[in-house]
Amino acid sequence: LRILIINPNRIEGCTEIIREAAQEAAGDDTEIVATMPTSGPIELSGEPEVLLSAVGVLDRVEALGDDADAVVMAGFGEPGREAAQAKVASPVLDITECGPAAAHLLGRTYAVVTSTEQVVPTVEDRLHALRLDDRCVGVLPTGLSVPDMVGHPERTLKTVIDTARQAPGEVVVLGCGGMAGQAAAVSQVIGRPVVDGVTAAVTLAESLVRLGLRPYRRA
Amino acid sequence: LRILIINPNRIEGCTEIIREAAQEAAGDDTEIVATMPTSGPIELSGEPEVLLSAVGVLDRVEALGDDADAVVMAGFGEPGREAAQAKVASPVLDITECGPAAAHLLGRTYAVVTSTEQVVPTVEDRLHALRLDDRCVGVLPTGLSVPDMVGHPERTLKTVIDTARQAPGEVVVLGCGGMAGQAAAVSQVIGRPVVDGVTAAVTLAESLVRLGLRPYRRA
Amino acid sequence: LRILIINPNRIEGCTEIIREAAQEAAGDDTEIVATMPTSGPIELSGEPEVLLSAVGVLDRVEALGDDADAVVMAGFGEPGREAAQAKVASPVLDITECGPAAAHLLGRTYAVVTSTEQVVPTVEDRLHALRLDDRCVGVLPTGLSVPDMVGHPERTLKTVIDTARQAPGEVVVLGCGGMAGQAAAVSQVIGRPVVDGVTAAVTLAESLVRLGLRPYRRA
Amino acid sequence: LRILIINPNRIEGCTEIIREAAQEAAGDDTEIVATMPTSGPIELSGEPEVLLSAVGVLDRVEALGDDADAVVMAGFGEPGREAAQAKVASPVLDITECGPAAAHLLGRTYAVVTSTEQVVPTVEDRLHALRLDDRCVGVLPTGLSVPDMVGHPERTLKTVIDTARQAPGEVVVLGCGGMAGQAAAVSQVIGRPVVDGVTAAVTLAESLVRLGLRPYRRA
Amino acid sequence: LRILIINPNRIEGCTEIIREAAQEAAGDDTEIVATMPTSGPIELSGEPEVLLSAVGVLDRVEALGDDADAVVMAGFGEPGREAAQAKVASPVLDITECGPAAAHLLGRTYAVVTSTEQVVPTVEDRLHALRLDDRCVGVLPTGLSVPDMVGHPERTLKTVIDTARQAPGEVVVLGCGGMAGQAAAVSQVIGRPVVDGVTAAVTLAESLVRLGLRPYRRA
Amino acid sequence: LRILIINPNRIEGCTEIIREAAQEAAGDDTEIVATMPTSGPIELSGEPEVLLSAVGVLDRVEALGDDADAVVMAGFGEPGREAAQAKVASPVLDITECGPAAAHLLGRTYAVVTSTEQVVPTVEDRLHALRLDDRCVGVLPTGLSVPDMVGHPERTLKTVIDTARQAPGEVVVLGCGGMAGQAAAVSQVIGRPVVDGVTAAVTLAESLVRLGLRPYRRA
Repeated sequence: LRILIINPNRIEGCTEIIREAAQEAAGDDTEIVATMPTSGPIELSGEPEVLLSAVGVLDRVEALGDDADAVVMAGFGEPGREAAQAKVASPVLDITECGPAAAHLLGRTYAVVTSTEQVVPTVEDRLHALRLDDRCVGVLPTGLSVPDMVGHPERTLKTVIDTARQAPGEVVVLGCGGMAGQAAAVSQVIGRPVVDGVTAAVTLAESLVRLGLRPYRRA
Repeated sequence: LRILIINPNRIEGCTEIIREAAQEAAGDDTEIVATMPTSGPIELSGEPEVLLSAVGVLDRVEALGDDADAVVMAGFGEPGREAAQAKVASPVLDITECGPAAAHLLGRTYAVVTSTEQVVPTVEDRLHALRLDDRCVGVLPTGLSVPDMVGHPERTLKTVIDTARQAPGEVVVLGCGGMAGQAAAVSQVIGRPVVDGVTAAVTLAESLVRLGLRPYRRA
Repeated sequence: LRILIINPNRIEGCTEIIREAAQEAAGDDTEIVATMPTSGPIELSGEPEVLLSAVGVLDRVEALGDDADAVVMAGFGEPGREAAQAKVASPVLDITECGPAAAHLLGRTYAVVTSTEQVVPTVEDRLHALRLDDRCVGVLPTGLSVPDMVGHPERTLKTVIDTARQAPGEVVVLGCGGMAGQAAAVSQVIGRPVVDGVTAAVTLAESLVRLGLRPYRRA
Repeated sequence: LRILIINPNRIEGCTEIIREAAQEAAGDDTEIVATMPTSGPIELSGEPEVLLSAVGVLDRVEALGDDADAVVMAGFGEPGREAAQAKVASPVLDITECGPAAAHLLGRTYAVVTSTEQVVPTVEDRLHALRLDDRCVGVLPTGLSVPDMVGHPERTLKTVIDTARQAPGEVVVLGCGGMAGQAAAVSQVIGRPVVDGVTAAVTLAESLVRLGLRPYRRA
Repeated sequence: LRILIINPNRIEGCTEIIREAAQEAAGDDTEIVATMPTSGPIELSGEPEVLLSAVGVLDRVEALGDDADAVVMAGFGEPGREAAQAKVASPVLDITECGPAAAHLLGRTYAVVTSTEQVVPTVEDRLHALRLDDRCVGVLPTGLSVPDMVGHPERTLKTVIDTARQAPGEVVVLGCGGMAGQAAAVSQVIGRPVVDGVTAAVTLAESLVRLGLRPYRRA
Repeated sequence: LRILIINPNRIEGCTEIIREAAQEAAGDDTEIVATMPTSGPIELSGEPEVLLSAVGVLDRVEALGDDADAVVMAGFGEPGREAAQAKVASPVLDITECGPAAAHLLGRTYAVVTSTEQVVPTVEDRLHALRLDDRCVGVLPTGLSVPDMVGHPERTLKTVIDTARQAPGEVVVLGCGGMAGQAAAVSQVIGRPVVDGVTAAVTLAESLVRLGLRPYRRA
């Protein structure tokens, strides 16, 4: 069983973080192929970069998706899932959906802890578009950029914990691929369930594949 | 990894159907313990039976839940998940949530195919309560009771297919534990994704357990 | 005209409070029969108790409901009205609906003042399920348990007044059977309308009976 | 206990229908004072007439409201309740709210049967404004004008029954003052609960008065 | 191209403020006819005055509307647009709709800055009725009455700026005809887009007229 | 005053249709610059093409937007407005917003008539994302592709009229740039207001520019 997971930015260290977290979450018989766009913006600092990145991600899906049993898009709040799904018959999962999907099973309400203040409206809009905003009680920025996360893992963990502690709701969703792998450590400190969108997506992808479920595709 | 799955009615054949479907969906290292209430109504023919059954299910959770890594409630539209969750630290999953959760990952909209016309308002109300009604475009009865399903599997499959074919939306959710194990056969005929709440719940439970995710519990 | 009113807990003093408030609100030709479950939890301290209590209430409806022109369920936020309704042809009213129904006629928005913090999510979820949350602007706990209310009426009144004073919205709804009979005293101090779910339910029940209105019952 | 009930049109026969239904629904110690505007439109055939009528109703509230323990506005879908409430300390009830309020206690969903096709959008908009549209599943015109209703009671009853029979939902609300008094006859034929907004408002008004409940009034 | 713009109160200075702002916003070939009711309340201090004023406005539409290519109702939060529209074939625009309509094109969310605290519920209710409340994140009173605005323009500007500065959301809508003409000055200070309902309505009216768009009118 | 209007596909004839309709709607002192992407998909036949086209549109905004007083995106249902807005200080308007914005001023409800069945979910999702779905009562495909529209204007008009005639709601919005300029002809036949998103956007852009309104931009 092979899962293609795509980091939307072009920071190798971030791809690495995602790969490790995904591999650790995956079953023994699951192969994780982590990749990132070969062109487009390095960082997703604003709406234009988010849009351009989606094209780079689509390109990766087209190139590598047919060999995968499932595809995971590891950007939180980004568009493009529908386009990617049109390219492959296997399910394409978006961590923006998978994080809240798992959170829904763990508590009545959830809050998202994300990167910088600039992405908050993007995330809020995307959750609304996906009809995942009913039970979302807040989207909180940590102020961390992806390079911050890659370069300073310990400081990052501390900042994520500080923000998560202040988050309202019963469950916290880590809303950035660069925070992959930190859920358990954050949960232990704050005493509430913490969902990592990346690892949630990997296990949900495995579920769908094992059940033989393929997505609906428009004619 | 052990999953306790509880059939809310007291029809042994239905428990058997659920057990088989759950076991088939589960990973090799997952042990399925299927059970049903030891007292209470045989069939869930109306709201009083649904309520009494929830107490019987709660009783089973209390007796057997501590030995399980996750609990699955296999009644579609029934109350009691919050009460069951209060009894154990492991996650308690409800097929009423897990079916739509998987469907959300496979298409924009879904319809539920369920047993008799009497349960339609119960199912609609529960989906609303769980805030899962936004993307639900219909709850369609097959007219089948659980004894029908247990006693006449071939006729049941035919009827489920007939109803699913007429269902609106992109994805169909099988909304009754007695239909467990039929998703692939229905999907093959109707050409759309079909989710079986029971098998979806089993693999989602495995996901949560493997990720070490425990539910939020009220003080 | 006879109204059966059911206290969901098994604290005799609470049944007494409810009986007195109901009798005082009722018309001269109305007989109030107040009762409580004969088995099940003493206090409704959590979701399992709430569920078990609903069965005890259902049992009372079955035993005594046929002799009543209307039934009032005096638990705020509890499930089971649909099940109870299936047992009798007379209308079954829930104070969780009747309090807000009266509040809607008295102001644009209302807040609920209830017992302990633990029941707040239960009440919020039930108001959502009943589609009564649109105009609800808050559910505020007093921190009082039912034994507190029964044992210390004066301190209880003071605490309810303190909480109601801080409640947002135009109208306050007393969201616990144990607060029955206090609406006028609270209203006088806070200068806003205060609705007691129990007395509202009694007079609404009388209205329905006098108008000859019977509830819809599923086939 | 005195209730002032105001017919918004200036058709004496309609005021008479409302008076009779109200008196019959009222308790023995309730005096019904039925009136109508002394100026303004005879019939409420469109939005301008509805607006002008609201001023005529306000005038009646100002002239006669202080002597009443409660005021009932007997136009379905008309504006002006907030204005009328500002004139008197007693509660002002609108049949547009009271019909659905009673229906909510009798079933999950309701449909409104009203006069002509022209008023359907007015009624729908008003139900939305009052946040009463969640459980409303249809507003159906009978095609009857108020003069039709006043002049031809038997034909009216037959037409109302025909329309009610086709109405979706569990409960039917008679959405026109000119249909007052017909609920029982319609219900008997269609086999579902039928609420008359006028009689519901009268008994709800009595409830509020007996409970000593006064509305919130803005500073 | 002639636009009739109607100030709902009867304060000449306010009509003058509206006329000037409208004329300044209008194209060279647009003639602005500003008027106010010839009878009814001087100030709109409460719900009864708002209702009576709507009749006075309707009267002006009837008298002068046929000569106009479009009509603008310059009261924020007032009813009566539907009634006015029934009187003329030309479009009738309400600044309560036009302010938010322009704001929607300029940002994700908006807040309304209005006159006194008393009108806040009226404005909130009207925005809900018009389904314009989804993106509205606040209605903030300045505490200013229309005579304040007319008599003390400089102090008014200062107060509006102070309130707008504290308003949440991306865009501010000036929610009172008496604030017409101040948007640019407020925007310059607070650094966010500020929409004046009056000038927005004038240019939207010109748009509709130039496009030859006539409103839907009920049969 | 210069408006840059961007056709998202790369069919010259469609750009020409848009240019003509825009120029005709624009004021005398408005210069229309119509353009289309210089790379990317020719037709927008599916989600991947829609995404790629958005990047081509963004590229045009970046190249030509600084010289424009406003930018109009002439694709109905496409993403990318937020990204485009980040590139220029002038307002960027999307016909998907402007069509419904004008329709809201002309009637209570509207339906969209669009190109092929494949784009219907894309349009529905985008209207939901923009919170414009409350008053939308249908999205109807004509079955026409853009090449159909460009190559066969008469047949196109006939098909649009046929579809619009069957559309529910009070107002019809033409939901495809290739239908630009046909609103008056369709309206004349169907007897209801018909809004062309392109011409609505042009006059709304002129309004904003003339009022000096600039959009909110994230830090």
